[in-house]
Amino acid sequence: MLQVRRAVRAELAHVGDGCVLVACSGGADSLALAAALAAEARRVGVAAGGVTVDHGLQQDSARRARNVGATLVAMGLDPVESLHVRIARGPSGPEGDARRARYSALQAAAARHRAAAVLLGHTLDDQAETVLLGLARGSGARSLAGMAPRTGVFRRPLLRLSRRTVRAAVPDGVEPWEDPHNADAAYARARVRHRVLPALEAELGPGMTEALARTAHLLRADADALDTLAHEAKEAATVGPAEHTATAGSVGYDVTALASSPRAVRWRVLRAAALEAGCGGSDLTAAHVESIDALISEWHGQKGVDLPGAIRVTRSGGALWFGRMT
Amino acid sequence: MLQVRRAVRAELAHVGDGCVLVACSGGADSLALAAALAAEARRVGVAAGGVTVDHGLQQDSARRARNVGATLVAMGLDPVESLHVRIARGPSGPEGDARRARYSALQAAAARHRAAAVLLGHTLDDQAETVLLGLARGSGARSLAGMAPRTGVFRRPLLRLSRRTVRAAVPDGVEPWEDPHNADAAYARARVRHRVLPALEAELGPGMTEALARTAHLLRADADALDTLAHEAKEAATVGPAEHTATAGSVGYDVTALASSPRAVRWRVLRAAALEAGCGGSDLTAAHVESIDALISEWHGQKGVDLPGAIRVTRSGGALWFGRMT
Repeated sequence: MLQVRRAVRAELAHVGDGCVLVACSGGADSLALAAALAAEARRVGVAAGGVTVDHGLQQDSARRARNVGATLVAMGLDPVESLHVRIARGPSGPEGDARRARYSALQAAAARHRAAAVLLGHTLDDQAETVLLGLARGSGARSLAGMAPRTGVFRRPLLRLSRRTVRAAVPDGVEPWEDPHNADAAYARARVRHRVLPALEAELGPGMTEALARTAHLLRADADALDTLAHEAKEAATVGPAEHTATAGSVGYDVTALASSPRAVRWRVLRAAALEAGCGGSDLTAAHVESIDALISEWHGQKGVDLPGAIRVTRSGGALWFGRMT
Repeated sequence: MLQVRRAVRAELAHVGDGCVLVACSGGADSLALAAALAAEARRVGVAAGGVTVDHGLQQDSARRARNVGATLVAMGLDPVESLHVRIARGPSGPEGDARRARYSALQAAAARHRAAAVLLGHTLDDQAETVLLGLARGSGARSLAGMAPRTGVFRRPLLRLSRRTVRAAVPDGVEPWEDPHNADAAYARARVRHRVLPALEAELGPGMTEALARTAHLLRADADALDTLAHEAKEAATVGPAEHTATAGSVGYDVTALASSPRAVRWRVLRAAALEAGCGGSDLTAAHVESIDALISEWHGQKGVDLPGAIRVTRSGGALWFGRMT
C-alpha cells in the first residue's frame, strides 16, 4: 500500500496544471492505482477523476463498467466516466486493435477534461511480459524497451513495482474483476504470463521478471540516445532530393558522412530513410537494412538493393539514393 | 554443407597472414567446421590446423582427445594438437572456469603457431542461448549482445547458421561426440537449450531462436556505439584527480559536461568511473548507477552515494568525486 502511494505521490510531483485521471479496468492493478490516486490527490489538493473503458467485447461489459464507475465514485474520484469504444480492425491483430482503440478513447477523455495526466496501472510484471513479446520480434533495442514510464499525457507510476505489491494495495471491500482474456491462451500475452515467464523463472532463477524489467529500462535509454544520434546523422548526410537518378524523386545521403557513423547509428539512418521513401515498416527487415549497408561497408560496384514497396536504393556520385522504381 | 563452406570461405577472405586453426571439441558443430576449413583452406592455399582441448574432467577425456586428433589429421589438417588444460577455480562458477581455461589455452596455441585466426564452431542456436543467459542478468545491451563474430584472434563464422544446418555438414563416416554436459540440467546452458528455448518456441513461435540471435547482432552494434561515446564523454568530463575532497585521491567529473550527455551514455560513464575507482564489477548494480546519476539529474544537496568496495561519490564544486572512503 505504502509503495503504491509513494509511487503515485512521486508522479504527482511531476504533473503540471489540470486534473489527473486514472484509467481503471476494474482489475486489481488499476483499482489499487485508483485508490492511491484518490488518497494522494486529496492530500496535495489536486483534482482527480477516473475513467473506465467499455470495449463492448464481453456480454456484461456495460454492467461491469457501471460497477467500476461506482467503485471509483465511492473512492472519491470526480469526474468518473465510462468510455464506450468501437474497435476498428487493423493490421496488428485483435490485441493491438483493442489497445489502439482504448488509448485513443483515453486520450480524447484527457483532452475533454483538460487533464494534465492519465495514470495507467501497468506493473513491473506487465513490463517483463512486454519485453518477452518484443524479444519474439527480434527487432532491436526499441522492441525490448517495453512501455514508457511517461509518454504524451500517459504516466505509468507502477512500472517498477511488482504485481504482487500492487495487488496487495487493493482496498478492503473492493472486489477486483479478472479479465478472462488474461487467462485465454489464444492471446500471446496470456501465454507469456502463465507459461513463458514461469518457465524462465523456474529454469533461470526467480529474478527473471526483475531482470526483464531492468532490461527495458536500460534499453529504452539506449534506444532514445541512438535514435537522437541517427536523426542528427540523417539530417547531416542528406544531399537530395534529385531528379537525375534512376529512381524518381530520389533522396540522397552522402556515403562518406554515413560511413563515419557507427553501425548502430547508420543502420537506424538507413532504416528511417527506407521508411521515409515508402517502405512498409512491418515489411522492412534487419536483413534489408544490412543489404543497404553493404552498399557502404562492402562496396564493390553492386547494382543496388530492392526493398518492399517498390523502393530501390542505388549508389552513385558518392551518395545512396532512395527512390521509387520507375 | 554448402552454407558452412561458404561461411568459412567468407571468413578466410578476412584473415591476415599465418595459418588458421580450428578449435574442435569432437562435437558435431566443430567437426563440421573443421571439415569445411580443411576443404576451403586447401582451395585457397592457406595452412590450416586443428586443436582440441582436454579438460581432464571426464574419465576417458584423454582417449577422446586422441580420437578427435586422429579425425582432424584424417581431414588433412596440420598441425593437429591436443591441449591439456587445468581449470582454476574462479568466481564465475564451473562453466565460467572451464571456459576461461579453454580460451586461454587456445590463445596460447594460436601464439605458438603464429596463427592468424582460431575458428570456433558456435552456431545461431548457441547465440540464442547466450542471449537468454544474458537476459537473466538483466544488465543491459552488452549482456544481450551474445558472442562476438570476431574478437582478438577468435572467429565464429557459423554464428548466423542454425545448428541443424551445421550438423548436416558433418562428413559421412565421422562420428560426433555428444558432451554429456550439454544434457546435464545442472548447467544453466543445458536448461536453456532443452527447456527454455523449446518453451519459448512453442508459446511465441518457431522464429524465436532467430529473433534472439538477431537481437544479439543488433544490440552488439548498439553497445559498441554507446561504449565508444561513453569513453569519449568520460575523457571530456574528467577534472580530477584532486586531494582536497572528503575522499582520498578522488577523480572528478564535471557535472555540466555529464548532464549534457544522454542518459544511456551518462550511465555508462558513471559505471566506468565507479569501476575505475575500485568497485567490484559484479557488486555494482544498475540501481547504484542510478543513485549516482540522481546527484546530477535530481540534485537537491544530497550527501553522497556509498558504493560497494568502500567507494563514495560526492558532489562539490560542480563536479562528482569518486574516491575511497577515508
